Amino acid sequence: MDLWYTEQHSKYAQFSIKIDRQLASVKSDFQRIDVFESKGFGRILTLDGYLMVTEKDEFIYHDMITHIPMATNPNIRKVLVIGAGDGGTVRELLRYETIEHIDMVEIDEDVVKVCKEFLPFTACGLEDERVHLYFEDGLKFVRRKEGEYDLILVDSTDPFGPGEGLFTKEFYGNCYKALNETGILVNQHESVYYESYAVSMKRAHQRIKECFPIAKVYQAHIPTYPSGHWLFGFASKKYDPIQDLDTGRWNELGIKTKYYNTDLHIGAFALPNYVKEQLEDE
Amino acid sequence: MDLWYTEQHSKYAQFSIKIDRQLASVKSDFQRIDVFESKGFGRILTLDGYLMVTEKDEFIYHDMITHIPMATNPNIRKVLVIGAGDGGTVRELLRYETIEHIDMVEIDEDVVKVCKEFLPFTACGLEDERVHLYFEDGLKFVRRKEGEYDLILVDSTDPFGPGEGLFTKEFYGNCYKALNETGILVNQHESVYYESYAVSMKRAHQRIKECFPIAKVYQAHIPTYPSGHWLFGFASKKYDPIQDLDTGRWNELGIKTKYYNTDLHIGAFALPNYVKEQLEDE
Repeated sequence: MDLWYTEQHSKYAQFSIKIDRQLASVKSDFQRIDVFESKGFGRILTLDGYLMVTEKDEFIYHDMITHIPMATNPNIRKVLVIGAGDGGTVRELLRYETIEHIDMVEIDEDVVKVCKEFLPFTACGLEDERVHLYFEDGLKFVRRKEGEYDLILVDSTDPFGPGEGLFTKEFYGNCYKALNETGILVNQHESVYYESYAVSMKRAHQRIKECFPIAKVYQAHIPTYPSGHWLFGFASKKYDPIQDLDTGRWNELGIKTKYYNTDLHIGAFALPNYVKEQLEDE
Repeated sequence: MDLWYTEQHSKYAQFSIKIDRQLASVKSDFQRIDVFESKGFGRILTLDGYLMVTEKDEFIYHDMITHIPMATNPNIRKVLVIGAGDGGTVRELLRYETIEHIDMVEIDEDVVKVCKEFLPFTACGLEDERVHLYFEDGLKFVRRKEGEYDLILVDSTDPFGPGEGLFTKEFYGNCYKALNETGILVNQHESVYYESYAVSMKRAHQRIKECFPIAKVYQAHIPTYPSGHWLFGFASKKYDPIQDLDTGRWNELGIKTKYYNTDLHIGAFALPNYVKEQLEDE
């Protein structure tokens, strides 16, 4: 059988993965959730047809959204995770003994249900007693919070559909308020290689820069995401991700990672000129 | 019209680009050469169906194969380029006034002819008086040379087809001999994300390590190449690409680049753990 999952990365480019069979297809209140089995990439989760997680390379995204802020401030105790229904971000956070409390706010309970059943490799930590799950709009949840978190991770879908509000200035302002005086905000920042993404991410970066004294962008190689050149936004009230990185201290923790290391931490912030120009140009 | 160029990146993954029309299709003595026009990526060159150059992102590959060694040793005067029929590597080398002589050895004269006609954006420097073109087998050319070059750039096709010999131990040994006592060899090193490439590149890296005292691997984000996570091999008799980099000196040259910068130079050598393990594991 010749069955292919295809995602449009732009009007002019598409990426396709050979599929063995479909494992689940759920129409939730918010989106369509599909899970596929494939030989080349293991299990695959898509939301509204957009690829979110593959078993083969999810470690790259989850390493990079988690370990960059955790290595920058080793005293992080209380974390808010928005989105991330697959559980991969929480799985990485739980590897730090210093973390006492994780609030995870996912708008779509069905995503978590599907991932618990079909993606145990990411969802494995969601039952941990340090994890507190809320099924509601992250936008509204964060509005009620003040000075409470050391770290907020925004592991959202793309800047259209259910995740749209997570790229607004109001949201970034509320994140600032919800963080304590040393707080860090990391959000997935799409890519700038294809024009449609570039415009929205330039805008998002400008909005974050207006809210936080430190606002940088870092990159990772994620082969199954559009262009494979994925960006993350690092915003912070106090800690600089390069100057305040204590490489020795992180390495002493003995956390084994498949993608992240402290040399790469520094290298990830060294963006190509054309990416810097796209982000700065307003 | 709905015309798509599709490349298999593995048995289980493919990447497709929407094409406006085909501009050329030549069957040479060595391979099939095709040029396409596309809205999303500009002009595109493929050899035996494999994507070599797109107008949209060729600057990334050509920046990274050229400026990394040139910034490591600013006294490079004589260069041997093997392959690189599109001319993009020579174009970047010619931006250095210090370079006096470039020997370019391309096995397939038809590639150069096609590129001069259809890819002027890369082929623009091939008529420069510092450039000496040889249409012959790079393998045999380098065998005749001794202590002659400051730098050899191997801008080859994949490790199968006409480029196969450029990944052998005999070839790397001859490159060592053809270089002078401060010589540097850079070669395109494929990717390790998809298994078929990983095996041959691990072998190539081991062979280079047996020939050169300094042998490192660096990476770039090239969205149209398989996985988008492209590697280059840096082999050297004397200069270390990090310790001997004089960032101030390169920046004083005033060479404007769209991808390369000296921070990224350092970051490019910070490989993810899974890539390091693939390269080291034997």
